[in-house]
Amino acid sequence: MKIAFFGIGIGSKNKRNEWLEVWYPEPAYQIDIDLNESLLNSIQTNTIDASSNLKLAKTLSRSETENSVIFDESIKLLENQPPGLTITLMIEDKPPETTPECYLKLHCLSHRLVKPNQINLDGIFNYLKTIAWTNHGPIDATEIDDVITKMHLLGKRVDITSVDKFPKMTDYVVPPSVRIANTSRVRLGAYLGEGTTVMHEGFVNFNAGTEGPNMVEGRISAGVFCAKGTDIGGGASIMGTLSGGGKETISIGQGCLLGANSGIGISLGDNCIVEAGLYITAGTIVSEVDSMHKEKNLKKARELSKANDLLFRRNSVSGQVECLRNKSTVALNSDLHKSN
Amino acid sequence: MKIAFFGIGIGSKNKRNEWLEVWYPEPAYQIDIDLNESLLNSIQTNTIDASSNLKLAKTLSRSETENSVIFDESIKLLENQPPGLTITLMIEDKPPETTPECYLKLHCLSHRLVKPNQINLDGIFNYLKTIAWTNHGPIDATEIDDVITKMHLLGKRVDITSVDKFPKMTDYVVPPSVRIANTSRVRLGAYLGEGTTVMHEGFVNFNAGTEGPNMVEGRISAGVFCAKGTDIGGGASIMGTLSGGGKETISIGQGCLLGANSGIGISLGDNCIVEAGLYITAGTIVSEVDSMHKEKNLKKARELSKANDLLFRRNSVSGQVECLRNKSTVALNSDLHKSN
Amino acid sequence: MKIAFFGIGIGSKNKRNEWLEVWYPEPAYQIDIDLNESLLNSIQTNTIDASSNLKLAKTLSRSETENSVIFDESIKLLENQPPGLTITLMIEDKPPETTPECYLKLHCLSHRLVKPNQINLDGIFNYLKTIAWTNHGPIDATEIDDVITKMHLLGKRVDITSVDKFPKMTDYVVPPSVRIANTSRVRLGAYLGEGTTVMHEGFVNFNAGTEGPNMVEGRISAGVFCAKGTDIGGGASIMGTLSGGGKETISIGQGCLLGANSGIGISLGDNCIVEAGLYITAGTIVSEVDSMHKEKNLKKARELSKANDLLFRRNSVSGQVECLRNKSTVALNSDLHKSN
Repeated sequence: MKIAFFGIGIGSKNKRNEWLEVWYPEPAYQIDIDLNESLLNSIQTNTIDASSNLKLAKTLSRSETENSVIFDESIKLLENQPPGLTITLMIEDKPPETTPECYLKLHCLSHRLVKPNQINLDGIFNYLKTIAWTNHGPIDATEIDDVITKMHLLGKRVDITSVDKFPKMTDYVVPPSVRIANTSRVRLGAYLGEGTTVMHEGFVNFNAGTEGPNMVEGRISAGVFCAKGTDIGGGASIMGTLSGGGKETISIGQGCLLGANSGIGISLGDNCIVEAGLYITAGTIVSEVDSMHKEKNLKKARELSKANDLLFRRNSVSGQVECLRNKSTVALNSDLHKSN
Repeated sequence: MKIAFFGIGIGSKNKRNEWLEVWYPEPAYQIDIDLNESLLNSIQTNTIDASSNLKLAKTLSRSETENSVIFDESIKLLENQPPGLTITLMIEDKPPETTPECYLKLHCLSHRLVKPNQINLDGIFNYLKTIAWTNHGPIDATEIDDVITKMHLLGKRVDITSVDKFPKMTDYVVPPSVRIANTSRVRLGAYLGEGTTVMHEGFVNFNAGTEGPNMVEGRISAGVFCAKGTDIGGGASIMGTLSGGGKETISIGQGCLLGANSGIGISLGDNCIVEAGLYITAGTIVSEVDSMHKEKNLKKARELSKANDLLFRRNSVSGQVECLRNKSTVALNSDLHKSN
Repeated sequence: MKIAFFGIGIGSKNKRNEWLEVWYPEPAYQIDIDLNESLLNSIQTNTIDASSNLKLAKTLSRSETENSVIFDESIKLLENQPPGLTITLMIEDKPPETTPECYLKLHCLSHRLVKPNQINLDGIFNYLKTIAWTNHGPIDATEIDDVITKMHLLGKRVDITSVDKFPKMTDYVVPPSVRIANTSRVRLGAYLGEGTTVMHEGFVNFNAGTEGPNMVEGRISAGVFCAKGTDIGGGASIMGTLSGGGKETISIGQGCLLGANSGIGISLGDNCIVEAGLYITAGTIVSEVDSMHKEKNLKKARELSKANDLLFRRNSVSGQVECLRNKSTVALNSDLHKSN
């Protein structure tokens, strides 16, 4: 049968027996698995037992040959039955309604099985608990104080790297052929295409990312996707829709350069440049300048959204924000994108 | 008797037997404890012994009913007497003169017992050692080289996350109902009100913070306090008084929005907006614009400090920095501030 | 004999027996060591055995008196012969051609033996593998998936803090008298002079750094060097040559201030200020203003590169970028630079 999302993972719970998080080594999207009614039912009602686990393992090893999804690691989990073993399955792409479903969908994004804005993540914040991510594993934030005191009395310490609903991606997924200088700045659910380098000042939210190869030294907000060859400069800001920004989901075309400390509240087409330090919001009034450097006409930046070959700058003599035809091409430094 | 600051903690020292840091599970501010002269004296001279410890434990368990300060964890420490047990007490709010006093005051801020700028932290830098914060605990920075070599010869590594006078807050305090995406960016002594979310690009120094709920994606310098409902956009800068900034301690009113990559060197009243990418220093000359968009008059930004309902922007056609009456209201996305 | 680079270290390899990284406790630059032909040969061909190790240890203990290089720790390594022991020697300063040579050169920078741009690092990216830096040590990024699965089946987790070709400096070198609030933002190969404080928003790439004392709250790109007393404000950007920037390697003189969220694409001489929020690229047209505030003439910023005593600002009334004679002096807050 056709299944939208499928994964076998290991997860953990809080003291009230509620799911905190799940790791899926081999999440799958839009696959065909030969599940009989009773196996499907026991997965969905979470009543799968040891013998059903082994039946599922056999089914998955057969599936491999049919549709080239490889479940080697998942089968290992089913055979070993480690604590926290869980099977998650969504027949259709509906809004997630459990923590495991949220984690499965976020895994699919980071494993590059689906692109940002391609799947339904409505209401995801409601099913993700605030977790203290520690050197002793994930702990429900409301239970952390007890753990800290107990550890101190044992002469040990709890190192908490984050108190957040979303984990960092590399706790769950390390996609091939990327570099991430500081992993705490890429959330699970980020999509990093092959050849993406996220430098120390880069940031990628969930449901956002890069086609690859790309250089990311600025902040890619939730919902934003950057096509290949684009360079997001140091400290550059891309407005998101979650907080403080506008309502349009922003995309950036191929071969663009957002200069250092620049920002955009509009989408860019291909081969565009925003000058270092310049912030273009949707409401910025931009003066279109022709090749003779004569002023053409004034437009709101949102009218230029998704147009190709534009160079945005603030004229340093007049102070006016201008838009010129961009004739140069941005080239990434290939040395920085090899990840041998 | 009335006591300004009180705490029972576990601390560590360097090889010269000097205090490095102390963790206090239940710091207290302005409380009444029934201490007799001899108990007080032995705490102050640091000569408290096992039997005095138990007397103090009894005193504290009685105090609980009187003024609703709960010392459950502290009593546990007194009874267990772990290595590094220490009792710190300051009758008045004077400048801190020992490392434990500094840590106690910083704990009180992060536990929300006092607000930024409310207590005396004069000279705190002089009593805080530069510490290498490692996976093997805090180590005096001058002693770290030996530890590194020894560990390497044992086939182990020392992971140093910070070499600094201030630790990250979550090593000592995890206040309820907050999210901190990257804990390394919030120092002990930060005050994060209920419902505060500090995103990856957010930063909060000691003696600074938010009333809550707030969204923090920019940098809150030492001394700065933000009232509720205010959103500090990605990469936004607020000038501090410690380094490079001016002399005025900045505050921000309710319901303000600092746009992404913006900055301020003045205080804001309620309901103000600073456009993304615009930096308003105290000396910026601002043109007040009325509702008819006619220029009114030029003022230094510092004359507008703490005024309500202002919208600051740089006119994208004239290049002039303008100040308009702000008619919109900033609303935080409540999904982002739930921390269930 | 004269040797350009010399170090005895402990390193690790991937499963294909290729070097990943090496730690050298006492790297040396331009020294004279009394090596006979056979010892030199066995070091260079990596065929040194236990008895040669001890011969080298004796040679090094004699060297100490001659040229004041102290090899106490290196001798300890030679005597203990821990797994991964390696000796690296480059007679001349040629481009590095092995991973150990790269690490040795980067160590020399961070140990302050050489300054940025002083040694040959050509092609260094080609000899550095992309490594997953984990709580279980450095692991080749192409081998990390296996480790993650194995650890999960053991109920353990792998914490990956970085997936990058360069490690953070403090994994290898902790120079004396510096503070680094967040060590993940300073790469091995950074040169941090005495009294340098790198705050949470600061960043220093390899082959870049500060003379000291300095305050660093912005980003120092590869190749950039800042003279003493200079303050790089929060989020300030300095254009590098590796990605997106120009071709000129930027330097900054003494006593400069880059305001918060400012940026430069030109070099600065001594005693210069760039206003908060202003980005000066090489092509910015700057209006030189004399003391009477009359406009003098227009210049490209690159013509002002390396000039002293300049104050750059954007006139907040006219929108024009101006350059004035700077009369004030920048003074670092000495409290912030003590690292006792």
